[in-house]
Amino acid sequence: MLLIKRLCCSFQRINAITKTRQPGDTLEVRGWIKSVRRLKNNVFFDISDGSTMQKFQVVVPKNEQLTAVSAGNLVRVLGQLQVAPQGHYELHANSLETIAEGNLNSGYPFSPKQQHDPEYVREYLHLRSRTSCTAAIMRLRHKTQMALHKFMDKHDFIHINTPILTTNDCEGAGEVFTVQPDSDELLKQMSRPPVPLSQSYFDSKVYLTVSGQLHLESMSYGLGNTYTISPAFRAENCKSPLHLSEFYMFEAELVFIENLEELCRFIEKMIKSVTNDILKFSEADIQYCQNQTVGENFNLQWLRDTWQILSYDEASDIILRNKEKFKTAVKSNEGFSKEQELFLVDYCKAPVFVINWPAAQKPFYMKISREDSSKVYALDLLMPVVAELCGGSLRECDVNRLQEHPHFPQGLEWYLELRKFGGLPTGGFGMGFERFLQLLTGVKNIRDVIPFPRYPHSCKM
Amino acid sequence: MLLIKRLCCSFQRINAITKTRQPGDTLEVRGWIKSVRRLKNNVFFDISDGSTMQKFQVVVPKNEQLTAVSAGNLVRVLGQLQVAPQGHYELHANSLETIAEGNLNSGYPFSPKQQHDPEYVREYLHLRSRTSCTAAIMRLRHKTQMALHKFMDKHDFIHINTPILTTNDCEGAGEVFTVQPDSDELLKQMSRPPVPLSQSYFDSKVYLTVSGQLHLESMSYGLGNTYTISPAFRAENCKSPLHLSEFYMFEAELVFIENLEELCRFIEKMIKSVTNDILKFSEADIQYCQNQTVGENFNLQWLRDTWQILSYDEASDIILRNKEKFKTAVKSNEGFSKEQELFLVDYCKAPVFVINWPAAQKPFYMKISREDSSKVYALDLLMPVVAELCGGSLRECDVNRLQEHPHFPQGLEWYLELRKFGGLPTGGFGMGFERFLQLLTGVKNIRDVIPFPRYPHSCKM
Repeated sequence: MLLIKRLCCSFQRINAITKTRQPGDTLEVRGWIKSVRRLKNNVFFDISDGSTMQKFQVVVPKNEQLTAVSAGNLVRVLGQLQVAPQGHYELHANSLETIAEGNLNSGYPFSPKQQHDPEYVREYLHLRSRTSCTAAIMRLRHKTQMALHKFMDKHDFIHINTPILTTNDCEGAGEVFTVQPDSDELLKQMSRPPVPLSQSYFDSKVYLTVSGQLHLESMSYGLGNTYTISPAFRAENCKSPLHLSEFYMFEAELVFIENLEELCRFIEKMIKSVTNDILKFSEADIQYCQNQTVGENFNLQWLRDTWQILSYDEASDIILRNKEKFKTAVKSNEGFSKEQELFLVDYCKAPVFVINWPAAQKPFYMKISREDSSKVYALDLLMPVVAELCGGSLRECDVNRLQEHPHFPQGLEWYLELRKFGGLPTGGFGMGFERFLQLLTGVKNIRDVIPFPRYPHSCKM
Repeated sequence: MLLIKRLCCSFQRINAITKTRQPGDTLEVRGWIKSVRRLKNNVFFDISDGSTMQKFQVVVPKNEQLTAVSAGNLVRVLGQLQVAPQGHYELHANSLETIAEGNLNSGYPFSPKQQHDPEYVREYLHLRSRTSCTAAIMRLRHKTQMALHKFMDKHDFIHINTPILTTNDCEGAGEVFTVQPDSDELLKQMSRPPVPLSQSYFDSKVYLTVSGQLHLESMSYGLGNTYTISPAFRAENCKSPLHLSEFYMFEAELVFIENLEELCRFIEKMIKSVTNDILKFSEADIQYCQNQTVGENFNLQWLRDTWQILSYDEASDIILRNKEKFKTAVKSNEGFSKEQELFLVDYCKAPVFVINWPAAQKPFYMKISREDSSKVYALDLLMPVVAELCGGSLRECDVNRLQEHPHFPQGLEWYLELRKFGGLPTGGFGMGFERFLQLLTGVKNIRDVIPFPRYPHSCKM
């Protein structure tokens, strides 16, 4: 058996120093030098290691080691933790070693001291995790997904990896991506006439998913409550700061639910609980992002408000009564513009669920209102900043009504069978995960809350 | 504001009854009737609600309600919890209501009492969550992902959603899927000559990802340790029970790692710790799956063993010395067949890491051994049942060596820049998530451990 000498490489990440270490402790930190200040007897530098947006100060006596102290360099510092005159912790270096040169003057795009515009930073996707803002958002994104998983698991939901490749294009109609093998040879080899050659891998036209809802339903009909945090895709030529070609959807399906208000209350409880959980671990990152984006006035007042419920008719009345206030024309029976949605939130002085929508505006699977058959039991959740955050509905569980729906898609016989064999009432919703992050951080462009944004004319790396 | 009467619909899921309820408690359960036994004074039936593979017995006195008692029906039962003569809990029904008819005689594919072959069950993807075995696997899949997330979060790794769409096809070479919008009109509208029309959405040929590793590296160069649990795709015409066209990869990237054995030890610790965690919550589901698949002899002995490390040369020697034992011919410098991999596990009487591979067999990003430049610091982890479970390596962090690699791909200048500007030593690995589930459950066909399997000539729903 081969033996390899084990290197000891325990070092201290900066985010944990104040929680776990005492002044006088000897410790090693590793990170990139962000800025350098040379004073008479000492050189001070800030070091960052990606664990927190807080920089950590290192003090080095002026001596022969100082060639290593150059902004951008990756260094290893061993020293004693001490309390600085201003009260914060700092490391008094005993030894300093350069792990790698920063080469900032050889084409590195970011200036360590300067804040760059998000548009500029986005040009250097591969390096942008080195900027404080992107790093803070990525840490927050992770903690937000963790909080969602923990909440759902605690409430007995089963996470389902809904498929990326699907033969359904229900909601798509021209806004979908198609998929096929790159190799023509493979297509020929797998050919099974009369299947068109381009479809010979799966014997069918295959799309990238636009939503995991129907697949979740199929699993909920056996397992109970389910959810997913999955990629979804839209082939739109849309450059809005709220849209991506590849994005993440949080979707949940609840069983034995027969009341739309119950679904609204679940969503409110979930978003508030998850946000409070995130604040426990990531308040500093959220605060940092908010300061960069909307300034210090930002608050999460919606966490403390009771969220309102309006019927679609009530919401339309409010909009019509205030139509002179909108830039966009007010059209009845067409849903609301983002401007109108934000007006409704402002009007209610709280987030608002708009429920009971005209059936004509909504997809086939939504449950027809048993009180007014022109309506469906659907909800939109409108929030400050991002406007529509969630959309959901009760699902039609009456197999005959479903089958007779004028827009019931071909190829979904399986969806009818779910109802036919011991079917159960379900309801659910989807939340744009990146929009939720925009709500938390105030980050204006959705391209900055996902690690590798994909949008029209851009798919870097 | 609209007011909706809130329906009270609290009911008890079956998995929690024995933990949270006492004999004499009144409770409501909801689920599907699995089997019915009619005795002289009472009717007994088993009910299942997807929360556990354990059926729960309901006792109904023979009276007028009994029309509802028919296998396949979804029912709501209110009653008192009592201890049956055999010692288990059962519910003595006071009232019984049919929520939906099962219609088992109208084309329902599964017999409630019968075990069906996995091949047969797989033909009815949309209904298979109703079978005990699929439900157990889906619950286990969820708990396994939760355990992985919790372990990584606790160890300060950041989860990164690596992109599904990518312009890299590094590892692919003919085994990749390409993506384009379905709408020809959209392609024309977005056309920017001389970009080929089929590429006009992203201005480039776009693939489905085969691995998130390079993207993780880019994030680790700013954030520290990262990981992902993400879909990955292979356009192979391969019908093996260990391969899918769409599958999930668990991948992790560790920073400041300069020693392959350290990476081996991390993997061993992670897999053991995560498995022990899963056993806490899902032992019954694991046991159930194992009984269905490999019988009662199954054990997780590898949890207690110390895993071994062999160099590639040592492993090759062992294989060559035993070449008469293999069905497949033994070729030097071609890696090992599955049969040979399982032999090595058997030979070592434990899982085994094979390390220090011939450079010619491995991709460009693996770190060239500083002791023997014909080798790279790469590892394969070989396990019982599934053979190769993980593959990993230290990454080449010397920008000059990388650049000079004969197979360094075009278009990866960004990958060089990671190293150029304060680069750091990293290493990582990938684990086929479904293979890990196969290892835990003994399920023979990978198509049965993913909710919606995609493989050659099959992409249902």
